[in-house]
Amino acid sequence: MVFKKITLIGRSNESFDAAVDDAIDRAEETLAGVKWVEVKELGVEVASVETREYQAEVEVAFELQGEAGE
Amino acid sequence: MVFKKITLIGRSNESFDAAVDDAIDRAEETLAGVKWVEVKELGVEVASVETREYQAEVEVAFELQGEAGE
Amino acid sequence: MVFKKITLIGRSNESFDAAVDDAIDRAEETLAGVKWVEVKELGVEVASVETREYQAEVEVAFELQGEAGE
Amino acid sequence: MVFKKITLIGRSNESFDAAVDDAIDRAEETLAGVKWVEVKELGVEVASVETREYQAEVEVAFELQGEAGE
Amino acid sequence: MVFKKITLIGRSNESFDAAVDDAIDRAEETLAGVKWVEVKELGVEVASVETREYQAEVEVAFELQGEAGE
Amino acid sequence: MVFKKITLIGRSNESFDAAVDDAIDRAEETLAGVKWVEVKELGVEVASVETREYQAEVEVAFELQGEAGE
Amino acid sequence: MVFKKITLIGRSNESFDAAVDDAIDRAEETLAGVKWVEVKELGVEVASVETREYQAEVEVAFELQGEAGE
Amino acid sequence: MVFKKITLIGRSNESFDAAVDDAIDRAEETLAGVKWVEVKELGVEVASVETREYQAEVEVAFELQGEAGE
Amino acid sequence: MVFKKITLIGRSNESFDAAVDDAIDRAEETLAGVKWVEVKELGVEVASVETREYQAEVEVAFELQGEAGE
Amino acid sequence: MVFKKITLIGRSNESFDAAVDDAIDRAEETLAGVKWVEVKELGVEVASVETREYQAEVEVAFELQGEAGE
Amino acid sequence: MVFKKITLIGRSNESFDAAVDDAIDRAEETLAGVKWVEVKELGVEVASVETREYQAEVEVAFELQGEAGE
Amino acid sequence: MVFKKITLIGRSNESFDAAVDDAIDRAEETLAGVKWVEVKELGVEVASVETREYQAEVEVAFELQGEAGE
Repeated sequence: MVFKKITLIGRSNESFDAAVDDAIDRAEETLAGVKWVEVKELGVEVASVETREYQAEVEVAFELQGEAGE
Repeated sequence: MVFKKITLIGRSNESFDAAVDDAIDRAEETLAGVKWVEVKELGVEVASVETREYQAEVEVAFELQGEAGE
Repeated sequence: MVFKKITLIGRSNESFDAAVDDAIDRAEETLAGVKWVEVKELGVEVASVETREYQAEVEVAFELQGEAGE
Repeated sequence: MVFKKITLIGRSNESFDAAVDDAIDRAEETLAGVKWVEVKELGVEVASVETREYQAEVEVAFELQGEAGE
Repeated sequence: MVFKKITLIGRSNESFDAAVDDAIDRAEETLAGVKWVEVKELGVEVASVETREYQAEVEVAFELQGEAGE
Repeated sequence: MVFKKITLIGRSNESFDAAVDDAIDRAEETLAGVKWVEVKELGVEVASVETREYQAEVEVAFELQGEAGE
Repeated sequence: MVFKKITLIGRSNESFDAAVDDAIDRAEETLAGVKWVEVKELGVEVASVETREYQAEVEVAFELQGEAGE
Repeated sequence: MVFKKITLIGRSNESFDAAVDDAIDRAEETLAGVKWVEVKELGVEVASVETREYQAEVEVAFELQGEAGE
Repeated sequence: MVFKKITLIGRSNESFDAAVDDAIDRAEETLAGVKWVEVKELGVEVASVETREYQAEVEVAFELQGEAGE
Repeated sequence: MVFKKITLIGRSNESFDAAVDDAIDRAEETLAGVKWVEVKELGVEVASVETREYQAEVEVAFELQGEAGE
Repeated sequence: MVFKKITLIGRSNESFDAAVDDAIDRAEETLAGVKWVEVKELGVEVASVETREYQAEVEVAFELQGEAGE
Repeated sequence: MVFKKITLIGRSNESFDAAVDDAIDRAEETLAGVKWVEVKELGVEVASVETREYQAEVEVAFELQGEAGE
């Protein structure tokens, strides 16, 4: 059974940990077999938000169960 | 609300600018919340096409509204 | 017509070649226009499996025919 | 109006989040239009300090309002 | 005489070429000895602007004539 | 006196900060002259553990006092 | 039949597109089986030329027909 | 319990798969808790050996049970 | 005596090992002092060929005996 | 107190060591708290100078005492 | 017989060449089969030492004769 | 007029500077318009030579005057 990886950007006004968790939470809502997560980039959005927004770009690996999908 | 990134390769017989626009146009046809685009690779296909084809591999970031999807 | 790339991890108990083929086979089951594949990472899982599992993370490029999809 | 990026290293005895905030705080004291921040490196100084010092090297992007300066 | 490099992000609603020129123009307004420019990143801002904004992050190398400056 | 670097992966159920500290703690138990630490990768193990496990791969630099060792 | 890649730097006073074309044109004058081109670096020479010179470093892939050559 | 990674170069006159296995075999002879392996480089030694020698540089991750060691 | 490196892409319908050998074979036909080979990229061509074609981009290092050549 | 990094290119007709020293000397003339230097690129200018000019691009880290400055 | 690589940082008040030699000397004191060395980073420590200290981070490859060791 | 880059590895028993010069000297014997050189890798061969051999892998850029050549 192959794995697939998708790239999400989690966001939080608290911390980078929470931004990563935000992305994992979102992935687990709709994907059954989430395996692991790799952090690719950390950043902070300052100008377009009221308080600093911590952002974490992550790759989420999961077991592909249905179609590979477009 | 998390962001998601997908990787598209736009193509044009005119220029790299047009190849990038080609990918953004395609993304905006079906995705509501396109935020920004990062250029990952530029190349030119020569042999298998009649005229040189400019190609731009880009990552498109958008606000994920439905399911994270497989 | 734009191309899209997705990231799959093929797995095999035999070899890296077979792990790459595993990922391509899976992609071709559901995607019509697979064009080419780029190998991104090779690794071996040792601890959580009975026999060594060869893994190949690949990017699969294909012609996007329907929606870009979330 | 062009943006400029400078590289700062924030430091904290508490956490990486605080080290990043340290660098942003410092930038915002003297720069009016800070836009966003990208984390480039995380590290910990151990030997030359009394307690572990978390360090975060970040690039700070801001709107350049006066001269590009040397 | 040493050279110094600074990082600017030029912006244009027309093309990447114009975005790069935008950054060079800005550098030459206030710096006497601009030598060469290296393109580091190309991107497009989509969401927060009316029309697509092409952005080019470049490093500008110039002959340092006064102080190295903070 | 030369320095040596080794690669450790600290793990924590709390945060990335704690995962980095975990690796430094382990290094300092047996190595006398730990100098500094560089974070190489951050990730989260999801599938094979009860609660999410934050992992930090770090390089630990220390003053080599005995043999370089195999 | 193996492919070979060589590295050329095309130059133009007009645009990056033209600089890339300059390199491909040069390659096709003397090489029969040019297949594709990958852009490796974009830059602008400012100081040693009268007008800005756009430069594109590209790798040209072609079918090797004679000797691999020194 | 922290993990540690060491870098080995396996060698084989048969194939890259065998070169990777060579490194894993060697690691498992003396290390109890080998977890996984990441391939870093593949190469072939030609001049100083009688037949081509396939080489695989790998990082071996294992559970650190004794001292972190110099 | 200096070494020179050239970049070749070997191709095979069998395996990556055979694709690498294909490139080395080709180099040794016309170059006397081949020293070693480094694998730079592995990929699979799917669309434009009848059966999957494994491709290996390699750098071949050899002792330069005649002219450095254009 | 945050650190800042700037990028300088030192130049020498003697050696790379001297080119690096040239950049550090220049930095220390006007900056009080230079901490360390990282070498980013080494190169040699041949065509536009009478004798070969060794160049070293370095990042200079120093304690930021006044304003972060544009 | 597999090779192993370890990472050392040699130091010298004279030059980068001497810093690299410092690391190799140290490795050869206790390791029998040193094969080759790759330079990974060059830097200069300025603040915490009396005179500039040139540092070279190198990977030392050697033939592993005893246990792979923790 | 396009530039071309070739990759040479200069060698010396004295120093890295001399190894780089060795490669440039070799290039200038047969190529008329050498422009500049970029250092890609530094290493030391220990096992297969009598005294340590410093090696410098460099890219040599020159003005292409005849054919692009295979």
